[in-house]
This record gives sequence, structure tokens and C-alpha cells, in this order.
Amino acid sequence: MPFRAPVADQHFILTHVAPLARVAETDRFCEASPELAAEVLASAGRLADEVLAPLNRTGDKTPARLENGIVRTPPGFAEAYRAIAEGGWVGMAASPAYGGMGLPMALTSAVGESFSGANLALQLNPLLAQGQIEALEHHASEALKALYIPRLASGEWTGTMNLTEPQAGSDVGALTTRAEPAPDGSFRVTGQKIYITWGDHDVAANVCHLVLARLPDAAPGTKGISLFLVPKFLPDAAGNPGARNSLRVVSLEHKLGLHGSPTCVMSFEGATGFIVGAAGKGMAAMFTMMNNARLGVAMQGVGIAEAATQAALAYAKERRQGATGRPGPGTIIDHADVRRMLATMRAETFSARALALDCAVAIDMGRATGEPHWLARGALLTPLAKAFGTDIGNEVAHMGIQVHGGMGFIEETGAAQFARDVRVTSIYEGTNGIQAMDLVGRKMADGGDAAFRLIDEVQKGAEAARAIHPDLAGDVWSAAETLRDGTETLLAQPMDDRFAGAVPYLRGFARVMSGHYHLKAALADPARLPLARVAIRRLLPEHAALLSAAREGADGLFAVSPEALEP
Amino acid sequence: MPFRAPVADQHFILTHVAPLARVAETDRFCEASPELAAEVLASAGRLADEVLAPLNRTGDKTPARLENGIVRTPPGFAEAYRAIAEGGWVGMAASPAYGGMGLPMALTSAVGESFSGANLALQLNPLLAQGQIEALEHHASEALKALYIPRLASGEWTGTMNLTEPQAGSDVGALTTRAEPAPDGSFRVTGQKIYITWGDHDVAANVCHLVLARLPDAAPGTKGISLFLVPKFLPDAAGNPGARNSLRVVSLEHKLGLHGSPTCVMSFEGATGFIVGAAGKGMAAMFTMMNNARLGVAMQGVGIAEAATQAALAYAKERRQGATGRPGPGTIIDHADVRRMLATMRAETFSARALALDCAVAIDMGRATGEPHWLARGALLTPLAKAFGTDIGNEVAHMGIQVHGGMGFIEETGAAQFARDVRVTSIYEGTNGIQAMDLVGRKMADGGDAAFRLIDEVQKGAEAARAIHPDLAGDVWSAAETLRDGTETLLAQPMDDRFAGAVPYLRGFARVMSGHYHLKAALADPARLPLARVAIRRLLPEHAALLSAAREGADGLFAVSPEALEP
Repeated sequence: MPFRAPVADQHFILTHVAPLARVAETDRFCEASPELAAEVLASAGRLADEVLAPLNRTGDKTPARLENGIVRTPPGFAEAYRAIAEGGWVGMAASPAYGGMGLPMALTSAVGESFSGANLALQLNPLLAQGQIEALEHHASEALKALYIPRLASGEWTGTMNLTEPQAGSDVGALTTRAEPAPDGSFRVTGQKIYITWGDHDVAANVCHLVLARLPDAAPGTKGISLFLVPKFLPDAAGNPGARNSLRVVSLEHKLGLHGSPTCVMSFEGATGFIVGAAGKGMAAMFTMMNNARLGVAMQGVGIAEAATQAALAYAKERRQGATGRPGPGTIIDHADVRRMLATMRAETFSARALALDCAVAIDMGRATGEPHWLARGALLTPLAKAFGTDIGNEVAHMGIQVHGGMGFIEETGAAQFARDVRVTSIYEGTNGIQAMDLVGRKMADGGDAAFRLIDEVQKGAEAARAIHPDLAGDVWSAAETLRDGTETLLAQPMDDRFAGAVPYLRGFARVMSGHYHLKAALADPARLPLARVAIRRLLPEHAALLSAAREGADGLFAVSPEALEP
Repeated sequence: MPFRAPVADQHFILTHVAPLARVAETDRFCEASPELAAEVLASAGRLADEVLAPLNRTGDKTPARLENGIVRTPPGFAEAYRAIAEGGWVGMAASPAYGGMGLPMALTSAVGESFSGANLALQLNPLLAQGQIEALEHHASEALKALYIPRLASGEWTGTMNLTEPQAGSDVGALTTRAEPAPDGSFRVTGQKIYITWGDHDVAANVCHLVLARLPDAAPGTKGISLFLVPKFLPDAAGNPGARNSLRVVSLEHKLGLHGSPTCVMSFEGATGFIVGAAGKGMAAMFTMMNNARLGVAMQGVGIAEAATQAALAYAKERRQGATGRPGPGTIIDHADVRRMLATMRAETFSARALALDCAVAIDMGRATGEPHWLARGALLTPLAKAFGTDIGNEVAHMGIQVHGGMGFIEETGAAQFARDVRVTSIYEGTNGIQAMDLVGRKMADGGDAAFRLIDEVQKGAEAARAIHPDLAGDVWSAAETLRDGTETLLAQPMDDRFAGAVPYLRGFARVMSGHYHLKAALADPARLPLARVAIRRLLPEHAALLSAAREGADGLFAVSPEALEP
């Protein structure tokens, strides 16, 4: 069945649940009128449906491969990438000063979701360029900006992030790649990096690597890390790709999913690089890129959840198996347990989408206004959106396999590919465990202010809904109260105890938010009430067990000795 | 890291949690002494560790393939299969009258778990032969028994189940394969079957297909189905493989996992078959096979959970990443969230194993004594063990990927293979949705008697533990009370409402049982208390939300219209 980008649902959320109108009232994003937003979503949706989605299986079946040191991408990917570039989608968030459209994250994120649902392996490419543009905008010299950003924003060149080394994954501070100053002010970068997504390819003229490395006299740990821009081809005087730089692809990884996306082991061998930002400030620059990449990854989870839901729904509407005992077409959609799975998939996809777009709106508001409460809200919602969005992506994809029954285990069906592709989203850009620690650690360093403001908002929303939907509003209000209580308990704990409860706490928090969004949706549109009822009556209750587990602390976990973990 | 069969844990459960001693007190299984049991578990464990596990990656990387109509299995599989056969493991449950060992299901199941954890793709082969032996023992003529069972039990020949057709999956009654009587009393079987595990191969001399088909004058639906034994090679007068029968492998499926196990599309083209049991009684005979296969599949889930837990633990003990802030080796096992995942994996694996072995003991007691309460207990526990065991297999395998971080997404690590291989266990032998419907439907047709007896037992166990572990015992007792209440609610509902809540109900039920088993374990061995605490304090609480969702009924689900399921 063909994929259809969820334009109507995105539009509904950006109108009624996380209003984009507020963003468009700011000076910075005053162009993002409702009319423009609708046009952007619809136009991106068409590209996703017509160009990207038809290549999704192709990418899986014809993996990117390394041939004589050059990465060859799956058939059709180069043309599809060009369609993305020519549509202006790579540079949609970039500053108009450098050829971008200057659109808010809320729209970039929704478009990213449509592209991810259609073809995640391909969408990783523009997503990385967008992150690179943002890092350069904030931290690079004017010369670098003027040279690189327009070419990245147009999609002529692409970008990568080079953080990870074999011994330095989540602990980026342990990296050992070196950068030696050269007399001309550039640097010679030497080291090996792994997990470099789209580290090389044949779809654009140049590949610009952002590489974390250490200067010779650098401090140990994260403080000694600087950021370098290392292009595959050094631009000549006219700004065209010139001399080949001293870097190469060592190998491609053989991955569970995302076969269409080349994941490279890169070797930098005295490669010429240009420093981005100040020496020793590489982590700060990289965090700019990563924070937005986290929201981008959240949208990947949502996009796959959407695609998996559509595929399962299409199958359930066609497949006949056993008597349903109900009037209707007699297909499995009318078996109660299949309907339960489909309703759950749809409800969860909506929740994850609403949470991520709420986060995007907060980030936009923070950028446009600089107001601390918007900045704090965006910062708090980011790990929630990333972890919940990607966990839901995984869960919904697995439910999609289950709806397909035996066919779900057969690759030709496509249901399994969604589950394989989405699996890494819970891991990269900071594992979901790290997101949870970020939530209970850094993001609550304000004493929980931002969290309590959000909880207040949920309860206010419930109070406003009480007259119309008393039972659902009551459930959401009480759940928020349990979250408030759990948050207070957590804040009183030492950090190790918080970390021990971080993952269930994050999920409990997101669960309460999902009840909130569904309630808002039902208030705005009565046709959404049945789905809200499923979300609040059947899915919301898990928050209690999660928040109860969250407060158990670390001692009980460490009481289980390594020996007791053996069989 | 090498796999080690969980012999100690199996032994502990069969001693303290689901005592095998009781089974050995019966006349039928009086040979199954504690000494013999220990020897059987240890000896199977050695075979799993030394012969089967080293081939697990091989099977994944070198899938079974079809060459000129013959299936070629991965390198080493034929030798490993012969080691299983020569050890007598295929026939361990078969009657000694036909060359078997006559051992109880409790031991067969534990051995099946060890083999599954080591190499699930290969273990499917003996498991199917065991099911076939059982169906033949119960339903076949003396002549068929004498000819086939000894050769199946010795592993000389292998067995398959041929139920599914493209249009008849869960609804077996819709099948159309025909069987025409021949003058010599045999039948000519014609039709196509799909998903035939180990439908052909090069590891043994003959393949015996049990095929469901319709006689010419058969009634529609399941009542018109008969069962036929259709060998690849028709035995000659001496009982050796003779003339090639008219059946062939059309193709192999390209699957998400279990690449080492050939999944065949089979075509029967007037193939000679022999009826098993009475005409029109094929479903009953097949159910004999399927019921035990369900427990076998439960053990597959447990086995993969064990293997994934061991792999994640080994990785976490070696991998250094970031400061842990704890004394110890400084590896990621000392990060609180990693310890949480590992403790959860270990606790869940134990729960699933205990539930499955408790089920096996009940089945053995039912067979040995014929007592209705044992029969009912075994029947009730079967869908619980199958669905919970395989869901836990999936969840633990995914957590295993998460513990590996980025490495988990790379196939060479092996963590992803566990998740791919185990995925189908939630689907085949009746999807877990069908298990849940079986639980709330057929298995509660006794008005819930068997369920309430189990709940009584859980509460009695909790009362016995109260003096020593008051908090944990209190939690388990209350959870059982919630389950009792939920069961009463469910029993008062029409079947469609029960079906709408079946999956969360089953999970809630299994969750309460898991608290019960952990409490028993902690009482028997104080070293198991910390893990029991994790299971009861952190995992048991989800039962409340599950049992709350279970009582919501079908109307709320069907209120979500197909249109509301669209994006």
C-alpha cells in the first residue's frame, strides 16, 4: 500500500494542540503564516508520497556499497535526493542570508517526519546537513559560513557528524583524533571515526565532515575538544570542489536496518580541516547540532510509527481470516484484538507526534523571543520527545508486524523493515537511557521549575475539559498529580537514584503528556474523542507503575550482583 | 562471548519452584529421578554450549538455500543435527516402546530451552519431530507407529507440520488441500502449503510431512479436515527411504530471522499419504501436536531471552564508557540504567522460564494421573506460557540491543540476531493474540475454576512468605487480588468484550504469576532476594494498568472507526 504523509494530522496538531500561530506572531518567524504552513506541509507530503516512499524497499534490498573506495547508493536515491534539494527542503530552516528559507523548527520537524516515514535511510542525509548548517550558523567564521552554508542549504553539498570513535561512544570526551595546526591557519586532522552516516556517497558533489578532535596541547576530557570542518574535496578559489582531501572510507557497517544509508568507518589521515568556533569549544558547537538532531530523531520515530500504522491498517482492511461476528467487510480489522492493536498504533503515533511538535514550537519560541521559560520548556521537552518518539516508533513497528501475522516475518511484506530501520533511533543521538538521565539531571537542575510548569499546564487543560469530558479529564488530572508527586520524590533523591529511575520516569512523564494531548484533541474535534478514550482509558494507566518504579532508587539494582545476573 | 545453557537455573526451578519430584512420584515418569534429571539437563547443556551455539551466527550469515529443488542447510548444521539425534534428544519424550526415553515434558522443555538459546534455527527441526511423534502416538495406526516413530525418535528422519495455506492462516478451517482415496487404502494429496519449517533439507534421510487436507465428501470448515502422513520418500518393504513422492519445495521464504531454518512453500501434487486418525478428525490430531508445540515455542522465547541476557551481560562487563562513580571495574555494568536493564532481563527470563516449566509439570501430571485439575491447569498455563515467554523473549532481546548501544545495531555483534530470530515466536503456533483469546475463551469455559485455583495458590504462597518478606508478600497478595477481581469482571462479560481485553489480561495474569515465582525463589534461596525485589517492586506494578485496560470492553475499540485510524 502506498504511504501517505500525515499532513492532515500535522496540520491539526499545529493548529489545535501545539499552535504554530504563536510562532508566526514573532518577528523572527512572521513569514510562517497558516497559509504558508499548509502549503509547506502539503508540498513536502507530495514529495514524500510520490518520490521518496516508492524507493524505501529498494534501499533495503539494494544496500549502499563500497566500490574502490567510493560509496554507491541504491538505485534512484541520487535522483530522489536531488528532488529534495531542488525543492529547497535541505535549507528550509537555514537563514535566508545564506540561501535558506528561515522557517521554524515546527515546520522543519513535520516535514522531516513525512520524509522519515517515506524513506528514513534517505532522509538521514538532509537531516545531517540541516544540523551542520545550524552548527556553522552559530559557531563558524564568516568566511566559512559564506562558503559552506549556501552550498549545504541548496543540497549541492552534504554534511556529516564525526563524533564516535571505537573507544568513545556515549563518552565523547574519551576521543583521541588529533588536529595539528598548519602554517596557513588550517589544521591537519588525523584519526578514525565510526558510525558516520552518509559519510560518503554518489548523490552530491562534496561531503563536508564536522569532526571532533583534540589540538596538541588540549586538556583531557570534553574540555579539550575542538570542532573542525573537513571537506572531502577542498573548495577551490571559485568555491567549487577542488583537491581531494586526505580522508577515506575504510568500510561500511553491516546493519540491522537502514541498508540504504551508508554508515561509514572514516579515516582522516592528515586531512585539511578548518576550525569551527573557538579552540576547546567543540562540544558546545556539537551540542547545538545534536540538540536539534534529537528532535529530528524523534520525528524519525514518529514517521516510522505512521508508516507502520498505515501499512498494518491497509493489511487489516484487506485480509480475511475467520468470522468476525460483526457487520462490515469481514476482514481482520473487525477482530477485537486487531482493532485494539490498530487503535493503539494510531493513538501512540498521535501522542508521539504531538509531543515532538510541542517541543519544536517551544524551541522556536525560545529562539524567537529568548524568553527563559520557552528555552527551558524546549530543553525539557527535547529528551522526552526523542525517547518517547523513538520508543513508540519501535513499539508501533512491532505491533505492525503482529497485525500482519505470519506475513509480518516475511521481508517482502515490508512490515519487518520498519522495525529494523527504526531500531537505531532509540540508540543514536544519545541512547534513550542517556535522554532520560539528561531529563532527570541537567533538565531538572532548575529545581524542576520547567517540569512543574508543564504539569500545571496539563492540570489546567484537564480542568478546562472537565465540564465536557469529566471522566477523561479526571483521569488526566490525577495522572498529572501522580507525576507531580513522582517528580518531587525524584528531586529529593541523589543523582544515582534519579538515574536508576530515569527511564521509567521519562516514560511516565511522556505518558501523562500523551493523555494531555489527546484530551486537547478531543476538545478541539469531537471526531477524535474515541481515540482519546483509547489513549486515556487503556494507555495512560501505565503511568502509575512507571512512576512507582521510578522512585525505587539505585540500591535495589546494585543489590543484584554481577553473579546474580549470571544464569 | 560463548553461550552457557542455564542448567543451574533450570535445576533450581525444577527443585524449588515447579518441583519435578512430584512428577517422578507418578508411575508414568518414575524414572525421572532427581539424579537423572540433573544428568539430562547438564548433558543437554554441554551439547548446546559446545556444538549448537558456535553455529548460531553461521546459520544467520549463510542462510539455507534452494538448489535445484533441494534445500542446502548452513555449514555445520548437518553434523550438529546428527549430534542431537545421536544423543537421543529427538526421542527423549517418545514412548520407550518406539525407541524413545519416555521422559516428562518438564525435562524435554528445559532441554528445548537450552537448544533454543544456543541455536533456535536448528532446534526447530527436532522440536517439529517431537510434535509429530506425539501426534502419531496418539492418533496413528499401529502400522504407521511402528514404521515411523522409531525413525523419527532416532533422528534418522525428520518431521514437519503442514497447516497453513495462503488464504488459511489462523483460520485453519478455510484450507483447500485435497486428499483422494486410492485403491490401496492410501490417499493422493494435492495442494499448496506455506510456512513449512524445515520442509526440506540435507541433514537426514527422509522428511515426513503431516498434512491437513480435505477428503472429497468432507464437510466445510474444521470438521471436514483430516490428517495425512506424507513422506518425501516412500518407505520400501525394509522400511528404508524408497520411491520419491510427488511433492516439492516451490521456494524458500526470505525472513526477518531464523535464516538457518528453511521455511518452505510446499507443493503436493498427488502425493501418496496415509491417514492419521479418523476421517474428519484431523484438527483434533493436529491440536495434540500444536498444544505441545506451544510450550515448545514458549521455551524458544525463554531460550533467546537467556542468550540475549548473557550476551548483554558479557558486553556490559567489558565495555568502558564514562565514569561510573562506583567502585568496581569501571565498566558500564556499573551505570545505574545499564544495571536496571540487566536486572530486568535476568528477572524476566527467570519469570518466563518458571511459568513455562510450571506449565510443563502440570501437563506431565495431567498425563500421568489423568486428574482433571492437573489437566485444566496445564491447559490454562499453556497460552500464558506461550505468549508471556515469547513476548519476554522479544523484549529482552531488544533490551539486549540497547545495552550494546550503537554496537547493537551492527549485525556482527549478534545482539540483533536474537531480536530477529525471536520475533516470529510471538506469531507462530497461534499468534499471542490468539493465545490470549484461548485463555479468556476456551480455558475459562470452566467458569474460571482453574484460574481461581491458581490465584488461590499465589495468595497462599504470599501468606506463607509474609513472615519473612512482608512487603514483597503483601505486593504479590494484592496483585493476585486485583487479578481475581479482573477475572470476575471478565467472566461476566460477553465474549467480544473478553477478546478486546484478552491481551492485556493475559499479560496481567502472567505478571502476577511472575511475582509469585520470584517470591518462591527468594524463600528457597536468600541469594535470589535482590532479583525478586526487582521483579516485585519494579515489574509487578504494571499488572494494575493491564488489568484495568482488560476490562474496558470492545465498544470503545470499535468506536474508533476505520476512518479515524487513517492519518
